[in-house]
Order: sequence, then C-alpha cells, then structure tokens
Amino acid sequence: METLVKNDQIISKEQLLAHWQGHRALTRRVIEAFPEEELFSFSMGGMRTFGEMASELIGIAVPGVKGLATDEWKSLDEKDPSGKEKTKLLEIWDQNTVEINEWFTKIQEGRLQEKMLAFGQYEDKGYCTLLYFIDNEIHHRGQGYVYLRALGIEPPVFWER
Amino acid sequence: METLVKNDQIISKEQLLAHWQGHRALTRRVIEAFPEEELFSFSMGGMRTFGEMASELIGIAVPGVKGLATDEWKSLDEKDPSGKEKTKLLEIWDQNTVEINEWFTKIQEGRLQEKMLAFGQYEDKGYCTLLYFIDNEIHHRGQGYVYLRALGIEPPVFWER
Repeated sequence: METLVKNDQIISKEQLLAHWQGHRALTRRVIEAFPEEELFSFSMGGMRTFGEMASELIGIAVPGVKGLATDEWKSLDEKDPSGKEKTKLLEIWDQNTVEINEWFTKIQEGRLQEKMLAFGQYEDKGYCTLLYFIDNEIHHRGQGYVYLRALGIEPPVFWER
Repeated sequence: METLVKNDQIISKEQLLAHWQGHRALTRRVIEAFPEEELFSFSMGGMRTFGEMASELIGIAVPGVKGLATDEWKSLDEKDPSGKEKTKLLEIWDQNTVEINEWFTKIQEGRLQEKMLAFGQYEDKGYCTLLYFIDNEIHHRGQGYVYLRALGIEPPVFWER
C-alpha cells in the first residue's frame, strides 16, 4: 500500500507550490524588464498594460490561496495596488511570495479535490481553481513577452524559473 | 489507507490529461480564429508567426507523451507539418488529440516522479516535463491572443476549455 501511494503520486503539494513560485519568479523578472513608464502605459491591440495584468495576478494570488485554505472568499479586486510605481509593485509581489508559502501549507489534504465557489463566483474543484491561477498568469505573461519584444526589450528566458 | 490515498491526491492522471486536452481544445480554437494568410505570415516584435508556434507545439505533444510513456526520445522537430495549410494543420492537431489519449494511458505509475532526459536534452522529472509542455502551449497561445487582437479579431474566451 505504501508503494501504491508513492507511485500513484503525479505531483506533491510541495512540488505544486514550487511550480507556482517558479512561475511567479519568472513573472517578477518580466515586470522588472519593463521600464516603469511602459509598464503602466504601453499596450497592444487595445489590451491592458502589463501593469494592469500584474495587478490582476496580485488580486488573485494571495486571496486565492487563502480561499483554498479557508474557503473564505471575497470578490475579486484587480485594482493596481502600487499607484503605478514599479518598485512598489515588486515589493507587493515579494510580500505575496511569502504569504502564498504560508497559506499554501494550510490547504488541507483532499481540499484540491473538493468543489468550491472561488471568489464567490467560479465553481470548480480545488485543483482546477489553483491551476487556473497559474495558467492565467502564464497566459498574461506570454502577452507581456510580446509587449517587451515590441518595445525592443529581450524578455527573460521562459525555461528559467 | 484507502482514505489516505484519496485525500493525498492533488490531481489524478486522468484529470491531468483532461486538463491538457482542455488547453489543446482552446489552442485549436485560437488556430481556427486566424485567417489562413495571417496564421502563416503575421507576427509582432520580430517573433514567429502563430503557425510556427503551433508547429512547435505539434513537434512537442505526441513525441513528448510518447517519450514519457516509453522513454524513447528523438530530437525535437519543430518544422511546419502542414505546408502552410490551416485545414491540414487542424487535421494534424486532431490526429494528435487521439494519439495523446492513447499514449497517455501508457505512462506507468510513478513515471512522472522519475528523472528523464526529454528529447535527449532536457533533464527533469516527468511531471516537470509534462507541465512544461502544457505551460509552453499556454505561453505561446497567450502571444497568439495579442496577434489576434492586433488583427482586430476577438480571440476565444480563455476560461472555456
């Protein structure tokens, strides 16, 4: 039975956290790569600035992992918490990194297989909700790569976490 | 012990396959949304066309899951297999969907926790390799969204799989 538990494991909770934090470290480097001016003003195709997208990610991350841990959800707040200051945005990003580590350990066993109403409006199983947070970050960061390239800035390499 | 197995599960193999195929279905809709001409000619910031990115994804998907199942790896082939024909590209995409389902079931228990040298050059654990395939697809598809927006085309909604 011991062996079955071990072998059946696709990914452990610790590995999933490390996977997410690896992506967050890369997103941080993408934020850093933008000049402050362009971070909050440049966009393409009528889309949002990367600063606005990063604000959405901040609005999701800590409240999201807290919701996974406690099942207490507030409605989504995607407002820029930095006052359009890149240093402040990165500071908040780093505080979030610590808070995510803390809340993640409080997610109980089996919780990721339970259904929940994330942010009071998105019904799905826990693992789908968590993967959505990560996938949404990768999606928007990919858009940030196009912005950086269009600005003539070499983005950080994708495979380094 | 039964309960422990169940509770400890973050995501099952079947759920991970469904997650990937859900993403692949969305990427298919993004390919479909491009006019054939622009699929193989339009790009921004000196990047590749979305047709070239989709060819990379095709080069990774079936050979990748086959490698996970058998540990037989060839070197990566990212050449466009469609001759710049959108219908042909979508046909190959759909054939891949079937082949991925077939090979995925052949991935043995515990395999995703083993180290491997994917495509003869990328060393990592199986789950990292597989998540890389998925993340890389989300990353490039996000870039495709910017291309579509810049072309004045509404992309498919991100949350529908």
